[in-house]
Amino acid sequence: MSAEKPQGCAFLTNEVGSERIFTPEDFTEDQRMFGQTATDFMNREVLPLVETLEKNPSGDFSEMVELLKKAGEVGLLMIDIPEQYGGLEVDKTTSMIVIEHLSKYSAWATTYGAHTGIGMQPLMYFGNHEQKEKWLPKFATGEVIGAYALTEPGSGSDALAAKTRAELSEDGEHYILNGSKMWITNAGFADLFTVFAQVDGDKFTAFLVEADRPGVSTGAEEHKMGLKGSSTRLLNLENVKVPKENLLGEIGKGHKIAFNILNIGRFKLGVGTLGGGKRTIEVATRYAKERVQFNTPIAEFGAIRAKLAKMAVKLYTLESMSYRVAGYMDRSLDVLDSSAPDYIAKMMKEIEEFAVEDSIMKVYGSEAMDFAADEAVQIHGGYGYSAEYEVERLYRDSRINRIFEGTNEINRMLIPGMILKRTMKGQLNLFEMIQKLEVALAGEQPQAPEQGNDPSLAFEKFLTEQAKKIVVYSANHAIQKHMADLRDQQELLFELADMISAIYAMDSTVARTLQLVESKGFEATELHRAATLITLADSYSIIRSAAERLLYNLASGEKLDRHLAALDKLTLHPRIDVIGLQKIVADAVIEREKYPF
Amino acid sequence: MSAEKPQGCAFLTNEVGSERIFTPEDFTEDQRMFGQTATDFMNREVLPLVETLEKNPSGDFSEMVELLKKAGEVGLLMIDIPEQYGGLEVDKTTSMIVIEHLSKYSAWATTYGAHTGIGMQPLMYFGNHEQKEKWLPKFATGEVIGAYALTEPGSGSDALAAKTRAELSEDGEHYILNGSKMWITNAGFADLFTVFAQVDGDKFTAFLVEADRPGVSTGAEEHKMGLKGSSTRLLNLENVKVPKENLLGEIGKGHKIAFNILNIGRFKLGVGTLGGGKRTIEVATRYAKERVQFNTPIAEFGAIRAKLAKMAVKLYTLESMSYRVAGYMDRSLDVLDSSAPDYIAKMMKEIEEFAVEDSIMKVYGSEAMDFAADEAVQIHGGYGYSAEYEVERLYRDSRINRIFEGTNEINRMLIPGMILKRTMKGQLNLFEMIQKLEVALAGEQPQAPEQGNDPSLAFEKFLTEQAKKIVVYSANHAIQKHMADLRDQQELLFELADMISAIYAMDSTVARTLQLVESKGFEATELHRAATLITLADSYSIIRSAAERLLYNLASGEKLDRHLAALDKLTLHPRIDVIGLQKIVADAVIEREKYPF
Repeated sequence: MSAEKPQGCAFLTNEVGSERIFTPEDFTEDQRMFGQTATDFMNREVLPLVETLEKNPSGDFSEMVELLKKAGEVGLLMIDIPEQYGGLEVDKTTSMIVIEHLSKYSAWATTYGAHTGIGMQPLMYFGNHEQKEKWLPKFATGEVIGAYALTEPGSGSDALAAKTRAELSEDGEHYILNGSKMWITNAGFADLFTVFAQVDGDKFTAFLVEADRPGVSTGAEEHKMGLKGSSTRLLNLENVKVPKENLLGEIGKGHKIAFNILNIGRFKLGVGTLGGGKRTIEVATRYAKERVQFNTPIAEFGAIRAKLAKMAVKLYTLESMSYRVAGYMDRSLDVLDSSAPDYIAKMMKEIEEFAVEDSIMKVYGSEAMDFAADEAVQIHGGYGYSAEYEVERLYRDSRINRIFEGTNEINRMLIPGMILKRTMKGQLNLFEMIQKLEVALAGEQPQAPEQGNDPSLAFEKFLTEQAKKIVVYSANHAIQKHMADLRDQQELLFELADMISAIYAMDSTVARTLQLVESKGFEATELHRAATLITLADSYSIIRSAAERLLYNLASGEKLDRHLAALDKLTLHPRIDVIGLQKIVADAVIEREKYPF
Repeated sequence: MSAEKPQGCAFLTNEVGSERIFTPEDFTEDQRMFGQTATDFMNREVLPLVETLEKNPSGDFSEMVELLKKAGEVGLLMIDIPEQYGGLEVDKTTSMIVIEHLSKYSAWATTYGAHTGIGMQPLMYFGNHEQKEKWLPKFATGEVIGAYALTEPGSGSDALAAKTRAELSEDGEHYILNGSKMWITNAGFADLFTVFAQVDGDKFTAFLVEADRPGVSTGAEEHKMGLKGSSTRLLNLENVKVPKENLLGEIGKGHKIAFNILNIGRFKLGVGTLGGGKRTIEVATRYAKERVQFNTPIAEFGAIRAKLAKMAVKLYTLESMSYRVAGYMDRSLDVLDSSAPDYIAKMMKEIEEFAVEDSIMKVYGSEAMDFAADEAVQIHGGYGYSAEYEVERLYRDSRINRIFEGTNEINRMLIPGMILKRTMKGQLNLFEMIQKLEVALAGEQPQAPEQGNDPSLAFEKFLTEQAKKIVVYSANHAIQKHMADLRDQQELLFELADMISAIYAMDSTVARTLQLVESKGFEATELHRAATLITLADSYSIIRSAAERLLYNLASGEKLDRHLAALDKLTLHPRIDVIGLQKIVADAVIEREKYPF
């Protein structure tokens, strides 16, 4: 690892492979052990209960609550909590590994995440010593279960438009809360809600609200498409009186809590979909090997093999993107002094540094998981439509990931939006890239290095860097044409978001595979190189198409001629034989009956 | 309409716009009236019952059965039945219009389709006079409800591998049936099953089996992802004795029945998804106009508008593809002599003529519907995941369309497979196209006509014809490399299928819009022209990418250089401003709150 302080969006400005990135190959013994604990817990305690949990026979989710407490017993609820409050305070990587392994069953992962993530983190990061001392040790054991109440019937994507009010009582000792919160995970059994409300009409503020306070009630269970093992309800607050000690953070600074928690949540959702995706590959591969049609296991048909390969490649890419960020965060947070008074503010700043990567992981992960679940249903044929098969649930459960933790639409707009903001602030040197690009455009069309027998992956690096030039070219002209108004051009922002995400996919995958070739040798990494080339082909194709759509929209006539001449100079036929490479990946998936990397 | 006998796959070999195609603009008064009857029935009888039907409170589907009988009362069950057997024997177009309008609620459309389609057609097309006289009048009223039993637990895509046996009794008067059939729609209440069984071990044969015969039983209701208002069960046959008069068609010719019925089924599924898709647009648009975020109805945001536009464009294309085939079929069948002894054989031949188009519609329609339902969920945000909203059901219901009537995988393999077979038999002059292509490759790169103010749509036609050349070039080299072995190269067949389908989409949409420009004038067709250009851009992009993947797989080194040089000569930057054009379509969708064409 480099000792330099890592920077968000470095994947755009640095040359691919110029820095070592953190990868699953770098996991420590300790980190692996936590992963094993989570896996054991899943296999022993959770998976045998899935059918029961989905039906929730008790109607009060007592089986799920029991499971949370058992997770507390083996230490899985305390991993993020500081030692002084009864926790283990492991690094972010470990925390991510645990979530990945717990995500084989979505309703459980959502329940766990609502407690240890969005339910606990506002308190853990923004609470004062007294609040933390009072609550965190109980969060660590599951004695107290947490929930997060941000969304309202009228405010989803527009979270700050919440109407719930909090008014200071006349004696100044209490806040009186009134309003309704929606889609509250764990609402059916949570003991402590983090509630966002407007103080004095427009000061968005967070409060800790105990479930047993008079005036707190929950609605009926929502009938959801999936996640049926988890509790989701409306939370009603009717003249709920909470002591002023329950104010979390500062008045009017609730948005800081909400947005920072969302950044972490997106990151976690990315690894959660990685875990769900790996489960999906196992389920699909097992079925494909067993099911015989035309006297042949369907796993031998090219149509099925290609699907399995595509799933695995997307997950390899997602894994490379995800743990790269975990590594960055650990490096950034490691050097902070946790006893300093501004520790939390600094920590949040470090976390926010990777907000672009978080949004990319959220979008890419949720779409990769949906892709995997959808193809797994298709592999199952008619059985995929039957609730007797796990894949039917995987498909329904997966669908929520593109909606919660900020819809993929909101995240797509954030990606270029944040990059523009950072560029304007001088935090990101996009202008230097534009200059480099202009040099490239003035010169000859470069020749691509040959693909194949090359441990330096020169072709892979070349294609990635050319792709970055196309993105910078397109973004630059979108900015030049629309200036500040670009933030209202959602269709253009979406194209830019997809291009930027594709760059992150290419850069992360090539960097990881390069390190693998260095450590394991060229021959031993055929599978990883195949996956990398497939991701490069897909990403490059996304970028090329998006660039065309953008430029066709930005210009016409001779101006467009000039754009297309530039684009032609930057593009090439990548000559990546995706169909052939998928066979290599499919062989590995089918042989190992799981995610093969 | 041209008086010539229409040919299947003409879209590949004829120049776009060189023949008049049948379109919704050509519907007669009578045809529209039938559509209105179906719509009225949906609005008055079916839609108010949806919630009840989904819950099936009686457990015996008596509400659904009641609805079928009511449909019989207003004539909707008899439309396909010949007059001599108590029906109306309308043309195929009318039949399709009715299905489209009845498909606003999938569980109902599936029930209706299982009765009037796969449940009745084997009898109607392959039954003898006595069988038809006995049963068809009762099908017309709903007194007898039909079902179709082909699939078995062990044989889905490989339908002919069915294990159900039929043995002639010693006295030669009966067949004794034994076996299990799976995924039988209407099984819970059907009176007559068309059952496929092996006579003498391997003679695949169809039988009519009454539900009340001893030994006929059904399993428990399947727990399905969707279509919860419809009945789906296992059908068990245990020493079921049916009189030899119940043999349908000829012994050992069951595959003819099964495959012909599937061809019609795919065609119907195409228009069914059109009806479902139109409903989905209405639901999504209504929500988008009502839902306010950031003080703005979300229908005003570009991200949402682009989704609505994409849905509408896909449906315009699907509609153009679907009714084109309906028109062909009516033209072909009109000239047949229905009293001739070989009438049925000839009719089946005419229907089979469009099997490629049927498979394309099935794949395109089911994927367009899934796309629409998925985006409609996304537009709804969290509410899209809640069973309180119709869109949640639309999403689950839609998913089966890619699986039944032959999975999209099977259909994708059929598309190039059937074209190859016809080429080999000399029914399709692909070689002439190859020669034309070679002339084109020997000449200069052609200039694209200018887009814009041109009522002859010269640019649209040019792009379509160029796209055909790319497909022919790719297909030709795939054949040259693999020869007969190509039919086992599923990954290559998939690429070819997507390219061919994209050609059909381009050709049908351009032809329809051209006719519209001619009849309504250039100015009045801005919306249709916008949709056409978007479809051209999307299809062209699919074709270009697929061609690249194919060629990268077929060749390398200098041979690939030559392929890419040829490809470069055939391709161009289409310069279609999809982002801008989508705004035109979105405006129309939002203004009319429905499919706007």
